[in-house]
Amino acid sequence: MMRIGLLGAGRIGRIHGLNVAARADARLVALADASAEAAASLAAATGAKVSSIDAILADKAIDAVLICTPTDTHADLIEQAISSGKAVFCEKPVDLDAARIRRCLEVVAKAGKPLMIGFNRRFDPNFAALRRRLHAGEVGAIEIVSVISRDPSPPPAEYVSRSGGLFRDMMIHDFDMARFLLGEEPVSVYAVGSSLVDPAIGKAGDVDTAAVLMTTRSGRIAQISNSRRATYGYDQRIEVHGAGGMLRAGNIHETSVEAATGNGFRADPVQNFFLERYAAAYRAELDVFIEAVKGGTAPSPSGLDGLKAQILADAATESRLSGKPVAVDLE
Amino acid sequence: MMRIGLLGAGRIGRIHGLNVAARADARLVALADASAEAAASLAAATGAKVSSIDAILADKAIDAVLICTPTDTHADLIEQAISSGKAVFCEKPVDLDAARIRRCLEVVAKAGKPLMIGFNRRFDPNFAALRRRLHAGEVGAIEIVSVISRDPSPPPAEYVSRSGGLFRDMMIHDFDMARFLLGEEPVSVYAVGSSLVDPAIGKAGDVDTAAVLMTTRSGRIAQISNSRRATYGYDQRIEVHGAGGMLRAGNIHETSVEAATGNGFRADPVQNFFLERYAAAYRAELDVFIEAVKGGTAPSPSGLDGLKAQILADAATESRLSGKPVAVDLE
Amino acid sequence: MMRIGLLGAGRIGRIHGLNVAARADARLVALADASAEAAASLAAATGAKVSSIDAILADKAIDAVLICTPTDTHADLIEQAISSGKAVFCEKPVDLDAARIRRCLEVVAKAGKPLMIGFNRRFDPNFAALRRRLHAGEVGAIEIVSVISRDPSPPPAEYVSRSGGLFRDMMIHDFDMARFLLGEEPVSVYAVGSSLVDPAIGKAGDVDTAAVLMTTRSGRIAQISNSRRATYGYDQRIEVHGAGGMLRAGNIHETSVEAATGNGFRADPVQNFFLERYAAAYRAELDVFIEAVKGGTAPSPSGLDGLKAQILADAATESRLSGKPVAVDLE
Amino acid sequence: MMRIGLLGAGRIGRIHGLNVAARADARLVALADASAEAAASLAAATGAKVSSIDAILADKAIDAVLICTPTDTHADLIEQAISSGKAVFCEKPVDLDAARIRRCLEVVAKAGKPLMIGFNRRFDPNFAALRRRLHAGEVGAIEIVSVISRDPSPPPAEYVSRSGGLFRDMMIHDFDMARFLLGEEPVSVYAVGSSLVDPAIGKAGDVDTAAVLMTTRSGRIAQISNSRRATYGYDQRIEVHGAGGMLRAGNIHETSVEAATGNGFRADPVQNFFLERYAAAYRAELDVFIEAVKGGTAPSPSGLDGLKAQILADAATESRLSGKPVAVDLE
Repeated sequence: MMRIGLLGAGRIGRIHGLNVAARADARLVALADASAEAAASLAAATGAKVSSIDAILADKAIDAVLICTPTDTHADLIEQAISSGKAVFCEKPVDLDAARIRRCLEVVAKAGKPLMIGFNRRFDPNFAALRRRLHAGEVGAIEIVSVISRDPSPPPAEYVSRSGGLFRDMMIHDFDMARFLLGEEPVSVYAVGSSLVDPAIGKAGDVDTAAVLMTTRSGRIAQISNSRRATYGYDQRIEVHGAGGMLRAGNIHETSVEAATGNGFRADPVQNFFLERYAAAYRAELDVFIEAVKGGTAPSPSGLDGLKAQILADAATESRLSGKPVAVDLE
Repeated sequence: MMRIGLLGAGRIGRIHGLNVAARADARLVALADASAEAAASLAAATGAKVSSIDAILADKAIDAVLICTPTDTHADLIEQAISSGKAVFCEKPVDLDAARIRRCLEVVAKAGKPLMIGFNRRFDPNFAALRRRLHAGEVGAIEIVSVISRDPSPPPAEYVSRSGGLFRDMMIHDFDMARFLLGEEPVSVYAVGSSLVDPAIGKAGDVDTAAVLMTTRSGRIAQISNSRRATYGYDQRIEVHGAGGMLRAGNIHETSVEAATGNGFRADPVQNFFLERYAAAYRAELDVFIEAVKGGTAPSPSGLDGLKAQILADAATESRLSGKPVAVDLE
Repeated sequence: MMRIGLLGAGRIGRIHGLNVAARADARLVALADASAEAAASLAAATGAKVSSIDAILADKAIDAVLICTPTDTHADLIEQAISSGKAVFCEKPVDLDAARIRRCLEVVAKAGKPLMIGFNRRFDPNFAALRRRLHAGEVGAIEIVSVISRDPSPPPAEYVSRSGGLFRDMMIHDFDMARFLLGEEPVSVYAVGSSLVDPAIGKAGDVDTAAVLMTTRSGRIAQISNSRRATYGYDQRIEVHGAGGMLRAGNIHETSVEAATGNGFRADPVQNFFLERYAAAYRAELDVFIEAVKGGTAPSPSGLDGLKAQILADAATESRLSGKPVAVDLE
Repeated sequence: MMRIGLLGAGRIGRIHGLNVAARADARLVALADASAEAAASLAAATGAKVSSIDAILADKAIDAVLICTPTDTHADLIEQAISSGKAVFCEKPVDLDAARIRRCLEVVAKAGKPLMIGFNRRFDPNFAALRRRLHAGEVGAIEIVSVISRDPSPPPAEYVSRSGGLFRDMMIHDFDMARFLLGEEPVSVYAVGSSLVDPAIGKAGDVDTAAVLMTTRSGRIAQISNSRRATYGYDQRIEVHGAGGMLRAGNIHETSVEAATGNGFRADPVQNFFLERYAAAYRAELDVFIEAVKGGTAPSPSGLDGLKAQILADAATESRLSGKPVAVDLE
């Protein structure tokens, strides 16, 4: 029975906590959150005890921690937890500063404990199946990867201002997805962006509509587009064009019901946001973490995957500001 | 160059006349219609001369005639044209009375000239491809055939009263389609029907909503459903379930455009009625007729196919009135 | 905290047991099964204690029981449990004999305790949404209800021989679904059936391919088709044609991945069988049962719904054998 | 009756010639082609007489000419025909050199005769409907335009070497489509490209796989991707994301038939190439040209549209070689 502690019991921490509680071979033994109410509520639902971050990190009986606290605490907490001998699952990103991530990963490397980064979309059953079939060669050599990712509605501008910007906060998932699919590392990143959704986002120095074009050494191409607003739901699509054909994974509608009237044929909006859209992915992600820790293998995506996605996000941020493509070296 | 005469230049006659005119190896040389205006208009569009039925039938230089006049003239005109040595294409049905059809087919058999009946749906590229693949064994032994056919809106009640009723006027196409797909003749027909669309149709003694269940000797099953009204367009679908899987052909939307908004994903209505939905089928049907006449082979669907569909329609009419299944012998 | 006992811990009992365990306001306190292994396994997963049917029925501290034992025990167990003052959820059918169901429902009526029958498909989120929208008038007056239900592969012939036959064992779900959608009770039932899938099923006196046509007093029509085998997965579709349009709910594919190659565009098979296809339905069904018991309201579908579906299945069985439609009176 | 001459009776000239012949208000009176065989064949099919370019241009009785000759003759022929007082329809591009196009358009402007450029995709019924609905505001302010265009198979390398390169030869259609949809002129163009399909194309100095990212002054974004090979057919898709939702137009499959087996659900490949995919567009395009000439209005797309698409193609070519975005000024 693996004993797990949870740091941060907010929206995403709660998901992970409940997923731990549903496994037969792991127990959520303790959790900590700045909000006593959030902590108590999840404790009641899972049987974990309410504790503090320090106490959890100090508890030798805890095998692993899940870090779901605010971004600016991630790197410190990873270092402390790893140094305390615990396996660590940390929500993306490790940090908004690539240099800080590098230092953190050095600490991790020395401690030799497993670190997994929460790029949940890799575990979506649809995307995971697509990738498996892609890398099994079903459509031959990979040529063009397209990722579309649009949120249902923009976050508050105050969130935006401390988010690191769209490329680091939102598109980072798509950079990871592009790497997951491309089969080669990107070598150049060109980004454009605008504030078309909410002028307050533009005033805060960020963009809410953006697109990126990346290439790899052998000439593969990746396209990404993002918007902070999609009226029809959380738009999450991937498509890969290869020498032998195309593989794509589309959106998931709320139900399979279709109505036909004089106005045409109407299907439901797509599932509205990540908690619903990626519920299965969150479960599968935690399963992979727990199995890796149990089996003594290195979990994936790793801290290095976290760093590489961050480097691409930094390059896109720079490209958007300079108006020029930015060369990157991820190998 | 095949020389063709057209009897009846109404809605459907006009289609056939224009399709003849578009071929390089056939010429529409003469046409007749009770409406001088309809005749003149089609003559202008095709280069045919306006003539009379009698003159066309008497013209030895005419190789073939297309009969697109009212139903109650079909059998007589077929007999006259065939006896004059012409190949005949006749719109369905040959007659509303199966006994009359039988007598007509005897005349045809004696004359030894080709007769083809206009079951246009067999020539729809989608349905034709489905049938080809079905009979090539793509989904194994045929088990359940389902045909859905719904008109956009009901005809006037006065039309209904001289139409022979829904089973003979509308579902006759679906009886032919079921035969086309089943690979065996039906041996029993059970029909139900109601007047749910227009009370005037019920008052005229007919139904506007109906369904039929048929079986073949080896136990294959055919389901047909009809409605005289579908708000979303002309609903034309077929589906065949077999031992190895399923083949189906769906509706054709007006365009491929899809709109996604807060109300969901909306596709266009389906093509609104038969002139548009079956434009390619009408062309292909006439091509088959002309090629058969040129090649000296028997065109299909034959007069016998016309008779068999009529027998099924009669059986359904009887079943609907008696409330009991009716046995049929088409072999 | 509602205390629940489970009678039968097989495939479907296990599902219900785990769903109880996942609720915060109910506890699976005891379970019984003829297989000690099945009982122990589910007990370990839920924290319930392994017990016996008699002990569970005698335990005054148990508020409700879930009956998931073989069909021939249902009526007796319902009577005993209800008479012991417990709320009862029972898998369909109550019994294969309508007269026995009637006697059972009299016992239930006298005891005044809630009885719910497990027609799980009513709780499928897609079908439930369709029905809600249908009865809210989205497509106007109901005219034609179509239900397609095909299992991935046939059961063993020995199962078939004690199942009551396809109409009572398999199509009973579709009879309930047709009633759920029609908005009126059927008044006539006509059924056809064949053994096309497995000759052993035919030898056992049953059919594996069947279709039914039903009408209601006002002339609404219901079509049902069943096959015991579908190579492409568990085929579960409903469609309702109304005065204002059509509502339908399609199949759920295993993933959203689509591959395009020279062979065309290929989507996944549909979810393979009921445990996967109706997982959400089983959860929702139990939620409804528990909420009804907690709230003191009558749960639905009721015992009477179970009886009516059985009457339709009996009528179909009789119709298939006699070759004639059978009148039914469910009002 | 408008009298039309055709210069060039190859693949595309033949299409236009037949479309003229099918109109009641226009006549194809003469045609010229370097291949006597091509000329004779189309003459036979349309009733036009075989002539020469010079004779056609000199014939005062000819109102309009359609230029379907090789690209390097377009600008000269436009100038001659326009100066002879004829209305001109010319296949894209006017020339591979923007400066030459500018000079040609000056000649056209002086002569004051109508010139229309054959960007056929604007007239595809699906794309035209999408654009109409987009500009009617159905999804609000335009934010992201995505165009996907992939040919079934690459042209011979020798064609590539005199084609002006992928951006001028193939993507030029997508530049026009992006302009058609964006509602604002692009101000920057960034392009990447690789030779992944056929090494001979790379050796010839061109690419066969490419993508472009453009922005407009107000920050709208356009994405284009091209491949010279798609195993599943001619891939032609557009999608526009706006403030109020999304509009997209998908591919057209060869038939509507779908097969479901143990391997999943398989739809047909998409229509294989432009003659089939854009047959309706070619008809509508010519209708617009003839109506504009008859009505004395300026046809669209104009020579200026041809120039602007060429400027974008030039910018993309430059960007691909320099690795930097290129600023453009189309206003």
